[in-house]
Amino acid sequence: MEQDRILHLLQQVRDGSLSPEHALAQLKIEPFEDLGYAKVDHHRALRQGVPEVIFGSGKTAEQIVGIVRAMRKNGQSVLITRLDAEKARAVSEQVDIRYDPVSRIAVSGEQSGVTAPGYLVVAAAGTSDLPVAEEAAVTAEALGNRVERLYDVGVAGLHRLLAHLDTLAQARVVIAAAGMEGALASVIGGLVSCPVIAVPTSIGYGANFGGLSALLSMLNSCASGVSVVNIDNGFGAGYLASIINHMGGADK
Amino acid sequence: MEQDRILHLLQQVRDGSLSPEHALAQLKIEPFEDLGYAKVDHHRALRQGVPEVIFGSGKTAEQIVGIVRAMRKNGQSVLITRLDAEKARAVSEQVDIRYDPVSRIAVSGEQSGVTAPGYLVVAAAGTSDLPVAEEAAVTAEALGNRVERLYDVGVAGLHRLLAHLDTLAQARVVIAAAGMEGALASVIGGLVSCPVIAVPTSIGYGANFGGLSALLSMLNSCASGVSVVNIDNGFGAGYLASIINHMGGADK
Amino acid sequence: MEQDRILHLLQQVRDGSLSPEHALAQLKIEPFEDLGYAKVDHHRALRQGVPEVIFGSGKTAEQIVGIVRAMRKNGQSVLITRLDAEKARAVSEQVDIRYDPVSRIAVSGEQSGVTAPGYLVVAAAGTSDLPVAEEAAVTAEALGNRVERLYDVGVAGLHRLLAHLDTLAQARVVIAAAGMEGALASVIGGLVSCPVIAVPTSIGYGANFGGLSALLSMLNSCASGVSVVNIDNGFGAGYLASIINHMGGADK
Amino acid sequence: MEQDRILHLLQQVRDGSLSPEHALAQLKIEPFEDLGYAKVDHHRALRQGVPEVIFGSGKTAEQIVGIVRAMRKNGQSVLITRLDAEKARAVSEQVDIRYDPVSRIAVSGEQSGVTAPGYLVVAAAGTSDLPVAEEAAVTAEALGNRVERLYDVGVAGLHRLLAHLDTLAQARVVIAAAGMEGALASVIGGLVSCPVIAVPTSIGYGANFGGLSALLSMLNSCASGVSVVNIDNGFGAGYLASIINHMGGADK
Amino acid sequence: MEQDRILHLLQQVRDGSLSPEHALAQLKIEPFEDLGYAKVDHHRALRQGVPEVIFGSGKTAEQIVGIVRAMRKNGQSVLITRLDAEKARAVSEQVDIRYDPVSRIAVSGEQSGVTAPGYLVVAAAGTSDLPVAEEAAVTAEALGNRVERLYDVGVAGLHRLLAHLDTLAQARVVIAAAGMEGALASVIGGLVSCPVIAVPTSIGYGANFGGLSALLSMLNSCASGVSVVNIDNGFGAGYLASIINHMGGADK
Amino acid sequence: MEQDRILHLLQQVRDGSLSPEHALAQLKIEPFEDLGYAKVDHHRALRQGVPEVIFGSGKTAEQIVGIVRAMRKNGQSVLITRLDAEKARAVSEQVDIRYDPVSRIAVSGEQSGVTAPGYLVVAAAGTSDLPVAEEAAVTAEALGNRVERLYDVGVAGLHRLLAHLDTLAQARVVIAAAGMEGALASVIGGLVSCPVIAVPTSIGYGANFGGLSALLSMLNSCASGVSVVNIDNGFGAGYLASIINHMGGADK
Amino acid sequence: MEQDRILHLLQQVRDGSLSPEHALAQLKIEPFEDLGYAKVDHHRALRQGVPEVIFGSGKTAEQIVGIVRAMRKNGQSVLITRLDAEKARAVSEQVDIRYDPVSRIAVSGEQSGVTAPGYLVVAAAGTSDLPVAEEAAVTAEALGNRVERLYDVGVAGLHRLLAHLDTLAQARVVIAAAGMEGALASVIGGLVSCPVIAVPTSIGYGANFGGLSALLSMLNSCASGVSVVNIDNGFGAGYLASIINHMGGADK
Amino acid sequence: MEQDRILHLLQQVRDGSLSPEHALAQLKIEPFEDLGYAKVDHHRALRQGVPEVIFGSGKTAEQIVGIVRAMRKNGQSVLITRLDAEKARAVSEQVDIRYDPVSRIAVSGEQSGVTAPGYLVVAAAGTSDLPVAEEAAVTAEALGNRVERLYDVGVAGLHRLLAHLDTLAQARVVIAAAGMEGALASVIGGLVSCPVIAVPTSIGYGANFGGLSALLSMLNSCASGVSVVNIDNGFGAGYLASIINHMGGADK
Repeated sequence: MEQDRILHLLQQVRDGSLSPEHALAQLKIEPFEDLGYAKVDHHRALRQGVPEVIFGSGKTAEQIVGIVRAMRKNGQSVLITRLDAEKARAVSEQVDIRYDPVSRIAVSGEQSGVTAPGYLVVAAAGTSDLPVAEEAAVTAEALGNRVERLYDVGVAGLHRLLAHLDTLAQARVVIAAAGMEGALASVIGGLVSCPVIAVPTSIGYGANFGGLSALLSMLNSCASGVSVVNIDNGFGAGYLASIINHMGGADK
Repeated sequence: MEQDRILHLLQQVRDGSLSPEHALAQLKIEPFEDLGYAKVDHHRALRQGVPEVIFGSGKTAEQIVGIVRAMRKNGQSVLITRLDAEKARAVSEQVDIRYDPVSRIAVSGEQSGVTAPGYLVVAAAGTSDLPVAEEAAVTAEALGNRVERLYDVGVAGLHRLLAHLDTLAQARVVIAAAGMEGALASVIGGLVSCPVIAVPTSIGYGANFGGLSALLSMLNSCASGVSVVNIDNGFGAGYLASIINHMGGADK
Repeated sequence: MEQDRILHLLQQVRDGSLSPEHALAQLKIEPFEDLGYAKVDHHRALRQGVPEVIFGSGKTAEQIVGIVRAMRKNGQSVLITRLDAEKARAVSEQVDIRYDPVSRIAVSGEQSGVTAPGYLVVAAAGTSDLPVAEEAAVTAEALGNRVERLYDVGVAGLHRLLAHLDTLAQARVVIAAAGMEGALASVIGGLVSCPVIAVPTSIGYGANFGGLSALLSMLNSCASGVSVVNIDNGFGAGYLASIINHMGGADK
Repeated sequence: MEQDRILHLLQQVRDGSLSPEHALAQLKIEPFEDLGYAKVDHHRALRQGVPEVIFGSGKTAEQIVGIVRAMRKNGQSVLITRLDAEKARAVSEQVDIRYDPVSRIAVSGEQSGVTAPGYLVVAAAGTSDLPVAEEAAVTAEALGNRVERLYDVGVAGLHRLLAHLDTLAQARVVIAAAGMEGALASVIGGLVSCPVIAVPTSIGYGANFGGLSALLSMLNSCASGVSVVNIDNGFGAGYLASIINHMGGADK
Repeated sequence: MEQDRILHLLQQVRDGSLSPEHALAQLKIEPFEDLGYAKVDHHRALRQGVPEVIFGSGKTAEQIVGIVRAMRKNGQSVLITRLDAEKARAVSEQVDIRYDPVSRIAVSGEQSGVTAPGYLVVAAAGTSDLPVAEEAAVTAEALGNRVERLYDVGVAGLHRLLAHLDTLAQARVVIAAAGMEGALASVIGGLVSCPVIAVPTSIGYGANFGGLSALLSMLNSCASGVSVVNIDNGFGAGYLASIINHMGGADK
Repeated sequence: MEQDRILHLLQQVRDGSLSPEHALAQLKIEPFEDLGYAKVDHHRALRQGVPEVIFGSGKTAEQIVGIVRAMRKNGQSVLITRLDAEKARAVSEQVDIRYDPVSRIAVSGEQSGVTAPGYLVVAAAGTSDLPVAEEAAVTAEALGNRVERLYDVGVAGLHRLLAHLDTLAQARVVIAAAGMEGALASVIGGLVSCPVIAVPTSIGYGANFGGLSALLSMLNSCASGVSVVNIDNGFGAGYLASIINHMGGADK
Repeated sequence: MEQDRILHLLQQVRDGSLSPEHALAQLKIEPFEDLGYAKVDHHRALRQGVPEVIFGSGKTAEQIVGIVRAMRKNGQSVLITRLDAEKARAVSEQVDIRYDPVSRIAVSGEQSGVTAPGYLVVAAAGTSDLPVAEEAAVTAEALGNRVERLYDVGVAGLHRLLAHLDTLAQARVVIAAAGMEGALASVIGGLVSCPVIAVPTSIGYGANFGGLSALLSMLNSCASGVSVVNIDNGFGAGYLASIINHMGGADK
Repeated sequence: MEQDRILHLLQQVRDGSLSPEHALAQLKIEPFEDLGYAKVDHHRALRQGVPEVIFGSGKTAEQIVGIVRAMRKNGQSVLITRLDAEKARAVSEQVDIRYDPVSRIAVSGEQSGVTAPGYLVVAAAGTSDLPVAEEAAVTAEALGNRVERLYDVGVAGLHRLLAHLDTLAQARVVIAAAGMEGALASVIGGLVSCPVIAVPTSIGYGANFGGLSALLSMLNSCASGVSVVNIDNGFGAGYLASIINHMGGADK
């Protein structure tokens, strides 16, 4: 999978420092540690430049603790998403975490400082979109980004959004989270020239059908530069925004 | 159904000028003329104050001619919607109509002058929404309204819409037609204090799913004063807008 | 956004009574107060002629109290919708509200008297549609309308509806709320000549699919003058009905 | 499958007039004739008391001719549904059929006279629902029923329907066909005490989604006695109505 | 609505025994009693030949008691459907009911004896479809029908169903309830010549999507004589089956 | 149903050792025992070569005990699926079962040893797909198969899957369970030449819509040899895999 | 990807017969030939034991000819699916193919003889399902299987299917293709003990929604041993059936 | 909208070089030219740094020519998307364009050279996804990007994709277009650390439901860094990729 590593293995085989059989074994076995219920990938941090992430929902506190320990052993810091308050308490009794109840994110290990050149904006249409917006914001901060929050800026009260044109105009990426007013992504997309990541939220009622309405609305945006992640996927938006915000212009 | 007429019939029966059996017969037979393939309702114009409307799609030119003639006999003017160009030609050879190919509407009989106190706005997000927007506009004009058109004002280019704030602010009703950018209704709904009638259009591609995306987006609008009609139902929007625009404040 | 205010600002700038920088600042900062979790809009009551509305669902009692206080400071009366009984009790311990458990609406501040010229009708198909119907009715009353209620008038028992033809005939607007029998809007739409606002409700079972059946049925109505709001959106229907009912005929 | 025939076969086996092996063979081979592309069932007319029916759509004219001939050989009359005009012409050149272009039904063989005690009503909401309504009506007539047609009686013009209360009240079954106004079935269901068979039609546009709206609306009817067949399935409605109309009260 | 009553009223008016105004009032007021939360229809039993039915779900015990009392006053017996055990207990403390926990139906008043000439069959695919099947069966029994139950006869074990061919063959109507195996209605429809009423149930998991799969499957049945009611609508199926089972052949 | 048995019955009839009437009775009565709430099929184990299976969800503990006893009487072993922990405890107090809380499967009777020639692989994309994957694995083991488990091998970390190419390459069948990453089935399908059974799981959030996303993704797989079972239907996958794994090449 | 080949390459590197750089190149370049518009995979026939397959729909005749030639060069035989008659003619002018217009399949190269131990059954519910059924049957034959066809055996006429119990009972795999009567797969699944591959077809009308109804019905089958492929995917069913039919019991 | 311009206008007003009324007029009129059927935005190129784009579908050749001329007047180059061959010919007779029939894109004006620091990859699963993939690629090239194309790399033949790991690893952005194999985006997302833009295509059949399957699959990707644009929206993907590829690291 990783070209350099494969080439290196092949060179070792040629040099006689590695048997073909062992090379094959390494190709398959090395990259992760198998806990039974999960495979812990010690190379990922290197390969993708970010802390390992655990999707907390659907795992027991015990499983989470196990994975965190395996990761921390190697010095990786860990981000745990979708961690409800009760499970967070159980986990915190066994490993050291910092937990934020709004975004439902816990961090174990050192928080990296700001590493990206500019800032990103997280905009949310209504106050009930906050958990998703905060999941995006806290994720981005944990990955070394400066984040500006613009909340309660739904398009039905356009002046609230327009009052922040300066902030929007300087952003390197904008995340737009909205449940009912999927339009927020389109309107922002028309105002800025940087990438806009739209996050539909499942919050609303009636014909929002669990986020479907916002999802479709965002996909149909006529504003160029807008793309969409899964309903309620604040983490994915924050993660992608961080990648973009860290992009350098030239020498890669 | 019509209380006055029922009461009048009953009075005639009491006065002996009408037998109970004939009264019953009148209750059932009078209000419309049966052409076999359609029932022509001569009282509707009186009852609802508008020309009779024929939904042209799915009727043959012969059937349309027959209905128009039955109506014109009583002096009613007639609006024919969803009339494609070919059928319009066939109809026009037999009865006198004025046909507009963009809105696909034909009118037979005298056009009423402007009868409503203010004007209404028809706004369309893109140029491809024009057939639906024009169906709304031409309908409203045929029903005695002054119409201001704001076309190509999708929210991805917000300044195009904001340039017309004056026009919007004075409108008594706004019709917002959009296929991809269902957001248009929300944004306008936040800018004006009059009723906004949203018309999703089926124009677009991909995840607009034949207008479903715009429909859901408009239904989920957080702007108060917005309601929605069927996908592509420009006629319904124009008709409803006309009712509202004709409303007087006091003496009804 | 507001033309007059912009023009006024520009005039002040020309007169030297306002610096360009301050004008820009005002354009952005003034219209609302930022509580962190929400932006309170002090101009809205003036701009749209109604009390400020708080969508109670998804906000904590503390947040609601905070918003109410910020609004009441300026003398605005406040309407809180989707407020469950428990949260209403918590709110009422800190600010003065009047709470109605059926419509789940609380009002803080003086109730306006009747300000609209005629009355509007709220019709509901079944007794289980009452919460939504009452949300519409109580909203409309809070906004200065006289409301006539026609409940349990589903089309499967047509005589129950027809018995109220007088009431329907004189209405300036009709709201039709129905979960299973979406037909109610069509039938009423065929009987009256005023606007009909259809509210699908999520009440029912099986193939009503959370209100989808009623929603589609109402959108497909062949009766002219019918438009639709979101499933369960009694507030939106009441609000729109109030705008229409307040319309004067001439001098706007 | 047919108990009597099985018992009879068994008795023949016991009597020695049939070998077990032949009995088994008969159980499998006899009831139909295999044309390769279709299996012609000569016992069905006896078993179910109706002419054999060919679903014409998706079969070639040649295949239809082949099936008709196989059936006619045994004296069965045949009903061919969904037969477009062109294919009807091709078929009629080889076998004797009577073709009706509106219902797209052809009949080969003698038409049975009226065999059921009462009549049934076929009601259609709009003129564009006629092809489906006529498929139902012609089917029912071919199966020996007297049919009353009530067309263009959509619920948005309720008086058109109410004018025919007598006809409805005496019907033994009512078929209600509607594309946009699915409500027709509910309203009729509330007016009559006989079974109502609802047929959603695919005719309409926008949010009728190919008949889905009418289908859901009819399924959600609160009127007792209403059941639904597939979208556009006029044949199925006519067939079922005929079974019900032929039911005798006692001696079965 | 009721022709006879209207004619009678008109005759009274002609005879001078009733003023036109009173006649109009009677047309509207008489047929039901208004409890505020519900309208009790005292004529329905006569008009439709069945006890009044209360849909228990979504009504409070108090409301149910009130409606039952209003009905019992006139001697009507009452069927209460969708009544959960707890509410049943509360109701039974105030009015006399017989409650069946499987079908969740309560009856107040005398049970009518068997009044229909033949019997009907209720077939259920799995044991988990029983609540719906029993709702159909108990409803039909309460309306004077003899009912044969065939449970656990899903088509994946065809011999279980075929073992009851005799019972099926003699039925005047068959109700087929199934959640996963919507096929049951088709298979039975091919075996019998009487009407088959299909009831999709919401029981199942995965791609049954709350009954949608069974619903679509039943609507697409190629077996003639099959029609469908709403998902889980056992009552509707039992009611319709009763109407059909009571049909006499001749003199209506 | 079973040709041999029918032929045998017919021969007995011919020989006079069985009367036709008794033969008919046997055809219908013998194959199962009717417990009222369920029909226990004693021939199924013979006919299909597997223990009888009880779908535990939606049955009471009492009903399950009754069915288990009826089956155990004849020596059949029994598999109970979808049995929650609480019900399992209640059942285990009355009959002897071995219960596995992850797969929610209980077994009563002797476990068969491995009877199939090769092994099958159960692959799961994420740890939250484990309950479904284990339902498949435990089912297959109970039916006499050797099972290799590959868990946490979602396609977003391809190297985790590729590390097990050996195991995959030798499998006779692969079951691929995934909720979010429906792609797992496609990727495996492209790597192996044996049948792949895809099991969408309902686990996930947002636009996975209860498993719909994985279901559609798996159905659209371009890899040949992939087929799909119902969402969460681990049992069905394990059962089918067992049939395939037991297939011998020649003499059937 | 292929373990053996990787190991072999590594051994060559160790032996010095291959440089590491060349090994890496081979790992990436060798397995296919790049035509620009397509990548032709010369190892697939070996790897998966079947002729290469071209999905003809959406490719030009020129592209198909190009791919066929590249494959034939290496002696592979080729199966072209979804090839309409016109394109088939164009292709046949340049390369040698045998074309079957019903299944729309063309074969180039030698047809393999029967290589699998038993036969498989292709069952189709109606005559209009034949194109899909034949795609499955012809595919399976091209891959070396003996195929028995059972057509027009929909469950609404159960005796037609039951007449072929012998044929079904001996099959090693059954393919069940059905558009309206998705039930066919369930019924067959209950009658046989071998794997059943269900193919929903898009043929039908109304609420079959392009095959969705049959698809859901088949997925919800309660018969064990049934799995499902994509709507209209006759090829996939035939291919999978062939894999299963070729399975030997022991020595793999 | 543009802060700088507003501030500048305000300064001019203060300086007396502009009257407040003219300032207001400029705020509204200047940014675009109104052609009646479209509003041409001369500032957009400056504001967003790209040529103006015309969505060709749904516009007449005349309208397109008109817009192109208005734009070219100001020296802007123009990109016309979704332009079918026939319309392209008509347009090319009046204005100078370069047209590519695969991507259906025409360019008028000078093509910018490569302006972005790295390259982006466009990967397509099948040959039938090429039109969408090319729309993305040609768009990106027109906006100054170097593009590497990887076509026919669907995940069912994983080695085809893995052979290009080098190319993928160096990309600054990857666009993944796929209709059936939505999994492509997930697999690539797991292999690279740059942003991946997924484009579902409507190409496929059966349960791909016009691209819905790929859309959902891509939204549910567990690979971080993946976002999604509308079905078939190659242009949107190329445009967004270009923005990201042009991002510099520091000084914005």
